[in-house]
Amino acid sequence: MPAIYLDNNATTRVDPLVVDAMMPYFEDKYGNPNSPHSFGEDTHEAIDKASDQIYLSLNARDEDTIVITSGATESINTVHKSFLFDYLKNKGSKNQILTSSLEHSAVKASLKHLAEFGLEIVEVPHKDFVISMSDVNSCFDPDKTLFISMVYANSETGIILPIQEIGALAKEHNIPFHSDATQGVGKVPINLQELHIDYMSFSAHKFHGPKGVGALYLRDKAPLVPLLHGGNQMGGFRSGTLNTAYIVGMGEAIALATEDMELKTEKIVSLRDKLEDFILAKSPSSVIRGKNVSRIPNTSFIHFPHLDTQRVAWLLNKQGIAISNGSACSTQSLNSTPSDQLKAQGCRFSLSRFTREEEIDKTIAYLSKIL
Amino acid sequence: MPAIYLDNNATTRVDPLVVDAMMPYFEDKYGNPNSPHSFGEDTHEAIDKASDQIYLSLNARDEDTIVITSGATESINTVHKSFLFDYLKNKGSKNQILTSSLEHSAVKASLKHLAEFGLEIVEVPHKDFVISMSDVNSCFDPDKTLFISMVYANSETGIILPIQEIGALAKEHNIPFHSDATQGVGKVPINLQELHIDYMSFSAHKFHGPKGVGALYLRDKAPLVPLLHGGNQMGGFRSGTLNTAYIVGMGEAIALATEDMELKTEKIVSLRDKLEDFILAKSPSSVIRGKNVSRIPNTSFIHFPHLDTQRVAWLLNKQGIAISNGSACSTQSLNSTPSDQLKAQGCRFSLSRFTREEEIDKTIAYLSKIL
Repeated sequence: MPAIYLDNNATTRVDPLVVDAMMPYFEDKYGNPNSPHSFGEDTHEAIDKASDQIYLSLNARDEDTIVITSGATESINTVHKSFLFDYLKNKGSKNQILTSSLEHSAVKASLKHLAEFGLEIVEVPHKDFVISMSDVNSCFDPDKTLFISMVYANSETGIILPIQEIGALAKEHNIPFHSDATQGVGKVPINLQELHIDYMSFSAHKFHGPKGVGALYLRDKAPLVPLLHGGNQMGGFRSGTLNTAYIVGMGEAIALATEDMELKTEKIVSLRDKLEDFILAKSPSSVIRGKNVSRIPNTSFIHFPHLDTQRVAWLLNKQGIAISNGSACSTQSLNSTPSDQLKAQGCRFSLSRFTREEEIDKTIAYLSKIL
Repeated sequence: MPAIYLDNNATTRVDPLVVDAMMPYFEDKYGNPNSPHSFGEDTHEAIDKASDQIYLSLNARDEDTIVITSGATESINTVHKSFLFDYLKNKGSKNQILTSSLEHSAVKASLKHLAEFGLEIVEVPHKDFVISMSDVNSCFDPDKTLFISMVYANSETGIILPIQEIGALAKEHNIPFHSDATQGVGKVPINLQELHIDYMSFSAHKFHGPKGVGALYLRDKAPLVPLLHGGNQMGGFRSGTLNTAYIVGMGEAIALATEDMELKTEKIVSLRDKLEDFILAKSPSSVIRGKNVSRIPNTSFIHFPHLDTQRVAWLLNKQGIAISNGSACSTQSLNSTPSDQLKAQGCRFSLSRFTREEEIDKTIAYLSKIL
């Protein structure tokens, strides 16, 4: 049975080079970076390098802050609850949060918690999984919007939201803008100087880094109430002993993902297109979501009108081809329905730079039998 | 120059066996544990094993919950803010938090944040770094105490608080009891069935596991408002993609730390005593804090009345012997003063099962010159 991994939007294989970079920080350079002796100091150069790699990859400026967290879920909850803490202390007239109907469960569930304290969630609807600026504008009330939280790219379809325009709108009205870019970072070029994003969350494990580390970007002077109070690591924005190995791993992973990104994307797109072309030829009624709009290059979300999608996914998985018909963050979890609407509507094939042509060929061969 | 690590209360070397246990989960078994395909399922056995190792090591019961977090700081903030969220929604007549004057900065800073929302912090004073039940009783008002948060053992001196008695008091008055056992777990036997602890926090990196993973123990039905909302991992108590490698690492580390603990402790105590006996002989006015009370076996906190403690630490560190005169979590951080009072009062030597006799001998040789 082949073991073919086409579920890279759920998580990715850690790049061997990333593992190599992390290894010295377990048994050898294991000091606490905050300790004022050589064991602590031995970690500083590596942490500084990782920080530089992250800043450089996203074109962040010196006056911006990149707070290392345990992953996107923590980053999202940090920025959301920062607004909650501020709201609870200084209740103003604004109590609406503008978000989209295409968010990951981490954003949905985090906002739902805020709603328990009187904040109102305004969700921009999508049309065929696309959010347009006219939809955003029609939901937006500058007098009521406390902050905006919109995903960079939807995790199921890979469709990219009009982030630059939403940022411009936010900036025009001086409203803080958070974007969860978990599916964007490492897959498409993100230039923070061209986007008016105030807060951006992401996770290393979506771009071949380890699971359990991520970041929260803060634009120059964007205020933040910490979620984890303690020893004042990360400039006081996020306390907790620094996870040197994973910080180094995330730096290496983002550098590897963004160097020669165009070349890597070209290869991924050619394999994705081969798969999509086959499916459209074999089953012309199939619908590839977002085929003609801006989307991340590694993702194909495919609707088979005459088939039971869950069964297609199940058959492929049973044959050793790992695909998804719903975000991994909800498929086996309790009380979570964020992707239920999408589940029945398609199969998600998500590739990576490690995907080989023969794996796509084998997938096509199996699909050929099923379709 | 020797590199001798006697700062194991700040952090520890990851045990090579722990690294070996983690390795398959980076490049090989890298699936998202929540994914319903073989790549996800391949991680389940290891996660179940790690969970068993943690339950067994602490004698937790099936009806208890052990929530894996990114470390003790997150665990502490989770339980504290759970009480805050509940308080903000259902303001009752109780608004006091009973804590000790010997907490780690993670507890102090987290409680300080709660105080901004109207909760009152009542701090039990210590006498010579010892907290007695009469001190606890005289600060305790059952009609006002919302919850108790008391450290298991102080990180500087290693002195253990009367946790069993505090638990009994909490239980008698039906008041929730959180103990931060970051310096206790892996160093002394902790039997959760003999202690009336409702919430217990700890970190793997204090017992030769990796930095960036820890846990929050919840006694049967102890309520918790999650701090990280999202995909409902960890039974909904802590969302975020599971960090398989570090979960496996923590399980292995706690199993290694607790198996034959008596033997390991014996060796550590003999080395500690060798060091302490030398110091008392060479400099009879030295004071070893907690020498005659219950303390964790690896820690010597030593006050040299006629010497500048910071200079002693600096000289040792300069000679490659890593010791501390203050928690690593505050020495290089901003606006943090929790250990300042202790800093001037002693040098902390903290050993581990990896400490060798020749390292203690070399330390003694250097100390001999300094004293």
